[in-house]
Order: sequence, then C-alpha cells, then structure tokens
Amino acid sequence: MSLPTSSAAGTAPAGPTGAVPPLTVAGAGLVGSLLALYLARRGHPVQLLDRRPDLRRSGRSEGRSINLALSDRGWRALEGVGIADDVRRVSIPLYRRVMHDRQGQLTGQPYGAAGQAIYSVNRDQLNRTLLDLLEARPGVQLRFGQQLQRLDLAGRALHLRDVATGREYTEPYSQLFGADGAFSAVRGALQRTDRYNYSQTYLEYGYKELTLEAGPGGTWALEKNALHIWPRGQYLMIALPNLDGSFNATLFFPYEGPASFAALPDAAAVTAFFADVFADAVPLMPRLAEEFFTNPTSSLVTVRCYPWHAADVLLLGDAAHAIVPFYGQGMNVGFEDCTVLDGLLNAHGDAAWPAVMAEFEQQRKPNADAMADLALYNFVEMRDRVGDPRFLLQKRIENKIAALYPDRWVPLYTRVTFSHLPYAEAWAAGQRQDAVMARLMPYIQAEADFDGPAVQAQLLQELAATGV
Amino acid sequence: MSLPTSSAAGTAPAGPTGAVPPLTVAGAGLVGSLLALYLARRGHPVQLLDRRPDLRRSGRSEGRSINLALSDRGWRALEGVGIADDVRRVSIPLYRRVMHDRQGQLTGQPYGAAGQAIYSVNRDQLNRTLLDLLEARPGVQLRFGQQLQRLDLAGRALHLRDVATGREYTEPYSQLFGADGAFSAVRGALQRTDRYNYSQTYLEYGYKELTLEAGPGGTWALEKNALHIWPRGQYLMIALPNLDGSFNATLFFPYEGPASFAALPDAAAVTAFFADVFADAVPLMPRLAEEFFTNPTSSLVTVRCYPWHAADVLLLGDAAHAIVPFYGQGMNVGFEDCTVLDGLLNAHGDAAWPAVMAEFEQQRKPNADAMADLALYNFVEMRDRVGDPRFLLQKRIENKIAALYPDRWVPLYTRVTFSHLPYAEAWAAGQRQDAVMARLMPYIQAEADFDGPAVQAQLLQELAATGV
Repeated sequence: MSLPTSSAAGTAPAGPTGAVPPLTVAGAGLVGSLLALYLARRGHPVQLLDRRPDLRRSGRSEGRSINLALSDRGWRALEGVGIADDVRRVSIPLYRRVMHDRQGQLTGQPYGAAGQAIYSVNRDQLNRTLLDLLEARPGVQLRFGQQLQRLDLAGRALHLRDVATGREYTEPYSQLFGADGAFSAVRGALQRTDRYNYSQTYLEYGYKELTLEAGPGGTWALEKNALHIWPRGQYLMIALPNLDGSFNATLFFPYEGPASFAALPDAAAVTAFFADVFADAVPLMPRLAEEFFTNPTSSLVTVRCYPWHAADVLLLGDAAHAIVPFYGQGMNVGFEDCTVLDGLLNAHGDAAWPAVMAEFEQQRKPNADAMADLALYNFVEMRDRVGDPRFLLQKRIENKIAALYPDRWVPLYTRVTFSHLPYAEAWAAGQRQDAVMARLMPYIQAEADFDGPAVQAQLLQELAATGV
Repeated sequence: MSLPTSSAAGTAPAGPTGAVPPLTVAGAGLVGSLLALYLARRGHPVQLLDRRPDLRRSGRSEGRSINLALSDRGWRALEGVGIADDVRRVSIPLYRRVMHDRQGQLTGQPYGAAGQAIYSVNRDQLNRTLLDLLEARPGVQLRFGQQLQRLDLAGRALHLRDVATGREYTEPYSQLFGADGAFSAVRGALQRTDRYNYSQTYLEYGYKELTLEAGPGGTWALEKNALHIWPRGQYLMIALPNLDGSFNATLFFPYEGPASFAALPDAAAVTAFFADVFADAVPLMPRLAEEFFTNPTSSLVTVRCYPWHAADVLLLGDAAHAIVPFYGQGMNVGFEDCTVLDGLLNAHGDAAWPAVMAEFEQQRKPNADAMADLALYNFVEMRDRVGDPRFLLQKRIENKIAALYPDRWVPLYTRVTFSHLPYAEAWAAGQRQDAVMARLMPYIQAEADFDGPAVQAQLLQELAATGV
C-alpha cells in the first residue's frame, strides 16, 4: 500500500482543477499573497494582480513601515501554510518594551509571561518569501503592473491597465478577493453601490521612519530583544531591531502645533529638537536630518466599511479594515482573516462561496471593529495617559491582580496579542476590567493600599460578580 | 442728481466684471441654483454646471422627494435674493402635525406658537423658479448635460463630458463650488486626497413616494394646512399637501424584516398591508399598487466629511452634509449655507476667497454635524419612543414647562425650525433639556404630579441652574 502523494506541505484537500476559471486576488501585499497561498493550497487556480511592479525585482519603497510586529494570530496563519519556521528564523523576538525617558533612563515592562514575545519581522522580506512560495506553485499566476481602473460589479468584469505599456483591457472574474490595502480600488467600487456604509478617519498625526545605526561589527547598540519607546506626551518614537544590528525607528508626530512636522522646517530645527527630546538616540542617527526630509511623512487612517462582500467580491485585510498601528496588530488581523476564511472553506466546502463570504463578513466585522477601537484606545493611552501618575499606579495594581489571580484576570494586552480569542471578546473583557478598576481605584492612593483587607475583599467580590 | 441704476433686485454691490474668469457652481439643484443667484447678485460672472438636462425642459423625475418643508432658515435665504414672496404664494403653510392611528382617529399638535408654520413647497417648482431667475441675469451661464468626469485639484481643471454628444473636454476653474448633492463628484475628488475624513452611513430604511388623490373639484380630502403622520412603531408614513388638492405621501419602511419592502413582493400583499395599517388613507390611493412598484425605493444616507475646502474648491449643501429627512431641515440647512456664505463675503470682501472658505467651513461644520445628529435623533424618536407612554407623558410635561416659562424653556423643535440660532447651540440646549427631564421625570407618574410643590420647586432650581 502506498501513501497518496500530495502537494508541497501535504495538507491540500482535493479542489477544482483544469478548466475552472481562476480565483482572482487583487493586491500582492502581505495579506493578498498569504491569501493566494491559502487558496492555491486548496487546489484552486489563482491569479494575483497588483498595480505595482514585483518588489523582488524593483526594490520599491513606498514609505510603508519596514518592520512589523508579528504575534500569535499572525504565527497561526503562517503555520497554516507551513512557513512559520522559515519566518521565525529571520525574525527577532521582543520580550519586553523598554521606555527611554528624556534623560536616557530606561524602564522595562515584559509583554507577557516568561518566554512570550512579539516578533520583529521585515515587511519586504516576508512579502518576498510569500511571493517565492506562490511562484513555485503550479496554477498560480502572478501579474504585476496591472492596475484596476474600474470594477464592473454587475458585469463581473475587471477593467485593467498595463502600467508599462498603457494598454487597457477588460477581463471577467469569477470570485474576486480585494486585498488591495487601505486605499483599495476594489472597495472603491463597492463604496459607490447603494446603501454602502463607509468611513475613513485620519488622526492629526503622521509618522516618519528613521534609522538607528548598528553598533560596531553589526552589534545592536540598544537592547536587541525589546521594542524601544520614547514616550513624550503629545508624540512618541518607537524602534524595532533589524537583523543587521540597526533599528528601524518610527516617529509619531502631530502635523501641526508647537512640536510637530510643521514646526521643524529645516535640518537645524530637526537636529536641535532631537538632541533635546531624544538625546540618547541621536548618537545612533548620523543621517537624521537627511532621512527626516527624504523619507515620506505618512498619514494614519482608520477605515471601516460594510458590507464586505457583494457580486462575488470579498474584501480582506486593510481593504476591509485599515487600523492605526498602535497595538501592533495590523498585519495580524489581516493574516487572521486568511485563517478564518480557510476554516470556513473547510466547513462549507470550496464551492460554497456565497455562504463562505457571508459568514466571513458576519464573523470578522465585529472583530475588525473591535481591533480598530483597541488601536485607537492604545493611541490615546500612549499619548495622553502614560504620563498620569494615577494611571501608572492603576497599571501597577492591575499587574498585581493578574499575578494574584492569573486565571481570572488576563491582561487585555495578553488577550489581544498572545491568544486567539476573538478581538471583540478581548475588547469587551478589557472594558469590564476598566470598569472594575474605576470602582477600585478611589480606595487606592498608593501601591500598598492594594493589600489592605477592604480592597482585597472588594476585589474578590468584583471577580466573583463580573468574570473579567 | 440721479440715483445709480442697479441690477434686478437693486442690492448687488460692485463686483468684478469683464475679463475675470467666472465662478463655477457644480450642481443646478436647489442649493446650487440659489448659491449661483447669490453670487451673480454680487456681480460675479457665474457658470452653473449639471450633468442632468434642464429640468424645465426634460420633466425629469429621479425619485427625489416631491415636497419639501421650508422653514425660517430657508425663508431667510430666499428673502436674501428677493424671492420669498413669490415662493410663499405657491406654498402651503402647515400649522400642525396630525397623527392618524390605525383606527383613523386623529390627534393634532401645533408646530409652534399661533401663526408659526412650516411650508410645503414643490421641489421642482422651486428649482424652476430659481433657474428662471438665473437665466434672466446677464453674466450667468447655465450648462446642463455636462458631467464632471474627473476633477484635477492640483491643476485646477475640470474634465467634463457632454452627455448628449459624448465629447470629453477639459477646462480650468478659478473658484469651484461643489453643490452637487449627496453623491457629489466634487467631493469624490476631495475624498481621494490625503488626510480626508469622510463617512457615508445608511439607515436600514428606504422611502417610497406615493400619492393621496385630491377630493372632488380639487379639494383636500385631509386637513390641508397640516403635515399628516401615520406612526406605526417600526415604520411610518407622512403626507404633505399639494396645491392641486392631492397629498404627496412618503412611506419610511425597513428594507428587511416582518413589515418591510422585502415582505411586500406583489400588489396583493401591498394592498392587504395598507388596508390593515393605513386604512383611512387607502381610499385616497387608487393607484397604490401601481405606484408602489413603479416608484423607486430610495435610501437614506448621512454624509459627513472634513475639510470642506481645498484647492479653491468649497463644498456646500448635501455635498458637504447630506442628512436624513426626519427633521424636515435638509433644504433649510443648505439654503442657510448660502446666507452664511453671503454674509462672509460681505465681511471679508469678494476677493478674499481663501479666508471666506476657511471661515465658512469653521462656522458651518459644527452646525451641519449637529443638524445631522438632530435628524437621526428624530428618526429614533419617531420610530422607537413615540409609542412609549412615559415618553408621551414627558412630552406633555415639557409643553407645560414651555407654557409656564416661555422665555426660559424654548422647545427644541422651535429652536431648530423657527429660529436662526446655530444648529449646534439648538442641539446643545436640547440635550440640556433632556438632562433636566431625566432628573424630573422620576417624580412624575401622571400629568397632575407636575403641579405638586416639590416638582415645581425642583423645576425652578433646574431653570435657575442650567439656563435651558
């Protein structure tokens, strides 16, 4: 008896083959590429369209963040196509955040329990890996430089333009997956249909990527296995490590105001400002002024829309739910979309697209909304509350509660980052915890008050009553 | 000594003439036409563009509401161009709302003090009047059937298409006013610029216009000088009188659910449903089933966006702030836009477009947002609360307070409809009144409780404390 031969990772179920039209994925970024890989592994012919050139050949840079934080939801999605181990080898675990104050004093906070980490990965490298895997599969067609000019939903047709030649042409689609990002052309067509709910909301902050250089011999000049944060009230800088010893820093900064992009018009102003507020980072930034004026200033948008499907079209990733980056979940929520869709195809079968798309939307929409809220919540927390002594005291008390009752008080960050609990449930639990703390904190003026019998009794009552 | 000759209405200040490029208004609907009239009266050459044919020649019907409720803000705007009296002659004052219950029993509520009324006007007739006035002015160019294909903000250019010939052409603009409605093409271009905040939100209700026929000899079969309402919990019908004795009715109805458009698939179902729930109206609706399936079902959208100006472009009317119709203010807020813009041109001068546009946006945005909130608030009130005995008791108590303290308790509806108070201030005052009522109502179980000394004392305290 011989074992059946199977495709690369050995898990692809039998799927349609031959004359069936391909599934079309718009957008060859992280989510589109991963989705195409999932669909191809199920046996579907897949074509992946992108208006941009192949980033493996062009070395494009669009001012997108270079480093991303991969956490449990993202890992599960990568495991599903058998590439988690490959990616892990080129990622850097970050076990804690390290805060830098203006005097260069450092304070650390672990992200989770011992061994729990988020992982710094390079966006382009991850994208390249996914594209290489796709290219190696039969039945997958990568079509770069093809811009979606217009989507004809009623006629199920794509009006495309070959960017290199200018040629415009039309072709039909059978199932179309819009994974073409926050400014999705696919979503643009849905938005013009009747009763389409849509919003795009910008923060009055932009972000700019800067480089902290490697130390001598490719060593890390700051603690390697940490995410570094320079919180400064109305703005902040963060930095994630690269494999070559450098760190990729991101400044989140108001567009206007006393400390803002508008207030730093030239190299002298930038240099003086950084020397004042990010003094310990400046020695690692010899190209600061050059980068500041060469690198783009990117905006921070939250996109919400509904429905996500219509006319054999489904939106996923940023096209369906672009969020601000302050929880490090943007890629993870998009990757989780792929896991969830794959699970629904397992449940309903690969021919049941209408049912799969409808259930995907129904399951994912509340979770994407919750993640959007969480990301904005973290922005406000990092910007406004992190300097408030009462808030910091509350955070220390919450840590004490989590340590005392680890089964009954799971920190919100842990639920979001180190679990697969639906985001909406994590967010609801976090709000219940906030309510408990609002009732508890009036009795706590200092850390020691927590140990008093009255506070402990009330806490037990709260834990029994609410199930936080 | 001879008096200076002046243009038609005798109020136009000296303005630019001759070789200056015209101001461009996109959209020849009510707000675009009125705005063009205001600008022309200031001495500006004006061109008015619309993708549709001239409604005076085409007799188009797009399923827009036929009747509109004009109230004080709208009248002031019409007075500003000297046509209020002409319009008043073809309008019908509505002094009260008349509720029809399922048994055909009627209950009336005056809209305001004696003599205060909202006015039923015919949309097309009003639009025709404005276009006739525009056409009679030198320096005004009406260009129908010209569709805005693309707006080049950086190049200050309009890419237009002549609908009749299909010819596409490009022309520059100097100042562009986007009054092209809820689905504004001008706004569409702004939406694609960086950091543009935008939302479109639909109710899960649609509306359909129907006709209540005139009585014998063109008489009104229902009370003429009233707005008629058939409130039915999850849906409602309203009717406004026409000059010919008919009433124009609008059914606001869920798209889906037990009583919904989806639940009435054929003439038999429609006829049976109406006979059951709108029994007293049915004898006036001989063409009910025909109209129900011929007239379009229109959706109900709220559009919010910001900023309203960029690159010598300014949005006004529904293009800037489409609202749901439940407060009868859609046209009035758009007309008030024209009054406010005219006032800013008086204050800053006709050459100061950047300052005028910036201040217009700053003044109007909070008021348009408040009006959008008010319209949604009224929808919820009409849908959910009007059947709640406690709510109706509260309304009766509020009427008593307003009668007792007319200077200190102005009803919200009066502030919105019969005043020129900025909508945001009206809305804030309404919310303060709601808060007072929430504190008062626990002590009131029946109307008579209001007269008790304890309630009266608390009311006086509230009135002294909050200034409602």
